[in-house]
Amino acid sequence: MKKLINAPDDVLTDALIGFGAAYPELTVNLEDRYITRGPTAGKVGLVSGGGSGHEPLHGGFVGYGMLDAACPGEVFTSPVPDQLLAATKAVNGGAGVLHIVKNYTGDVLNFQMAAELAGDDGLQVESVLVNDDVAVENSTYTAGRRGTGGTVFVEKIVGAAAERGADLATCAAIGREVNDRSRSFGVALTANVIPATGSPGFELGDNEIEIGVGIHGEPGRARGPMSTAREVAAIALEAIHADMPLDDEVMVMVNGLGGTPLIELYVVYAAVADWLKAHGGIITRNLVGDYITSLEMAGCSITVCRMTPDLTDLWDAPVQTPALRWGR
Amino acid sequence: MKKLINAPDDVLTDALIGFGAAYPELTVNLEDRYITRGPTAGKVGLVSGGGSGHEPLHGGFVGYGMLDAACPGEVFTSPVPDQLLAATKAVNGGAGVLHIVKNYTGDVLNFQMAAELAGDDGLQVESVLVNDDVAVENSTYTAGRRGTGGTVFVEKIVGAAAERGADLATCAAIGREVNDRSRSFGVALTANVIPATGSPGFELGDNEIEIGVGIHGEPGRARGPMSTAREVAAIALEAIHADMPLDDEVMVMVNGLGGTPLIELYVVYAAVADWLKAHGGIITRNLVGDYITSLEMAGCSITVCRMTPDLTDLWDAPVQTPALRWGR
Repeated sequence: MKKLINAPDDVLTDALIGFGAAYPELTVNLEDRYITRGPTAGKVGLVSGGGSGHEPLHGGFVGYGMLDAACPGEVFTSPVPDQLLAATKAVNGGAGVLHIVKNYTGDVLNFQMAAELAGDDGLQVESVLVNDDVAVENSTYTAGRRGTGGTVFVEKIVGAAAERGADLATCAAIGREVNDRSRSFGVALTANVIPATGSPGFELGDNEIEIGVGIHGEPGRARGPMSTAREVAAIALEAIHADMPLDDEVMVMVNGLGGTPLIELYVVYAAVADWLKAHGGIITRNLVGDYITSLEMAGCSITVCRMTPDLTDLWDAPVQTPALRWGR
Repeated sequence: MKKLINAPDDVLTDALIGFGAAYPELTVNLEDRYITRGPTAGKVGLVSGGGSGHEPLHGGFVGYGMLDAACPGEVFTSPVPDQLLAATKAVNGGAGVLHIVKNYTGDVLNFQMAAELAGDDGLQVESVLVNDDVAVENSTYTAGRRGTGGTVFVEKIVGAAAERGADLATCAAIGREVNDRSRSFGVALTANVIPATGSPGFELGDNEIEIGVGIHGEPGRARGPMSTAREVAAIALEAIHADMPLDDEVMVMVNGLGGTPLIELYVVYAAVADWLKAHGGIITRNLVGDYITSLEMAGCSITVCRMTPDLTDLWDAPVQTPALRWGR
């Protein structure tokens, strides 16, 4: 295993120290393991979190117009309830706290426990579950669909609504709407290597790809032969299309899983744009880059969100985080 | 070879089509092979370029406050003079054009030829050569030092100066000053794979790293054993320190070479911040992420620029490009 780390056990701590040094406008609580911009009086607090190894998700999305706190678990491991509770309390501005939870069993249980504990302390907590990945119905770590790229859209759009003063119920409703309108599908070309084990999370042949891969490298629908960017885009979009109409205004993310060069993501984006145009879709907003990764896995995921004028307006609102920034 | 492409010969064209689709505010000239935001009357035009495979450099840095045009060559291949000439003319706003050239023999010759041709047409062209990589004095494609991460700082800072109305001589002087104050050093953990050949650009053992690697995978100073993030940071910073004092205010970039997860770059940044603090350095600005890559190479480079209040002010000025954006 070749990784730029000091010791497998220290990866998260060292990364959090580095993150805190790089973004002094944010606070890293090393003891309780969360990143925050602190509470904003009268604003709904947004907390997300999950296993590490998906950077910039979630820490890279903490800041004005997006999350108030992120709780990183160890690599590919859910954050614990105490950690989530501490972050929930830290961002309480008096208007309640919204948890944005990717649908993995451990995440769901631990966020739920934290919400109950916060409720015992008189804090109002709502939760939005993200389950946008159409690849499989149940998976290694999941009952139901997995939460993947749609999380980025949910966090940005709800973040804007919260910044504008939407109340807790409204923020939750907008988050659910974005999730309902979002679908994702991923393809892996190579495996990731988890620092704690030091070996590939799975094996792929020289000419093989994992179709519908999860963000931890968990299996998708099938193994297939290595294909062109156009074929990969078509596989992903057909899977999404089978689940949701795409003949209207959409936002698209072509997301790198970590080990794929940006030049290839542009090639994929060209194929995605072509495919959607041929199927009546109109791309009104896009992201091309690494936003929700799986360590050094090569491959990409495609996320599509059916937009409305209100959602577009919230997407366009100012944001200032390490990984997404505009309008400020 | 597993890559998200359609055919090796089409990579650049397909990527440019995708780039153009993703960033409709920019113009991609597919015939002459450049990306531009068009000319701005009365402003010095800034043109950079070089081989592809280093994305987001340079196309990702075209936009307000940074470049006016970027000329991508084929992967790891210099852009040709005609292409550079066309871009130079396309951004002529009447105040002359500045070429920002990384020090590789082909780039230098071709930019020079384009400048001469533009001069024949009555266009005033100046050139800034970036040669910030302290690893080796001459290399596979270079006489003298290679140009690497410092290019990002030069393009951003000169871009801000040009936006504020600095004349051609001033832009060139600021570019040279930033280059003089910048030093870089890179380390590779794995090789890249050039699409045209389909095989690794070089071979590295399971426990080996290339110390002082170039952004094409060209050799550095030595092969060494795989080391910790702290050791890698120290190797790079000691090499830089041997060439430039670091006991004052500095800007630091911890740059991923393409295949290294962001979580590892945070770990490296923590080590860099520690090392600099112990040696009297004060980090006033930073970038952590993939800014000048080498396809899917795993590893990182560290760039340090000794700052002045004027350079910091220009760095902080608004910028709106695909890869760097703030203040707008």
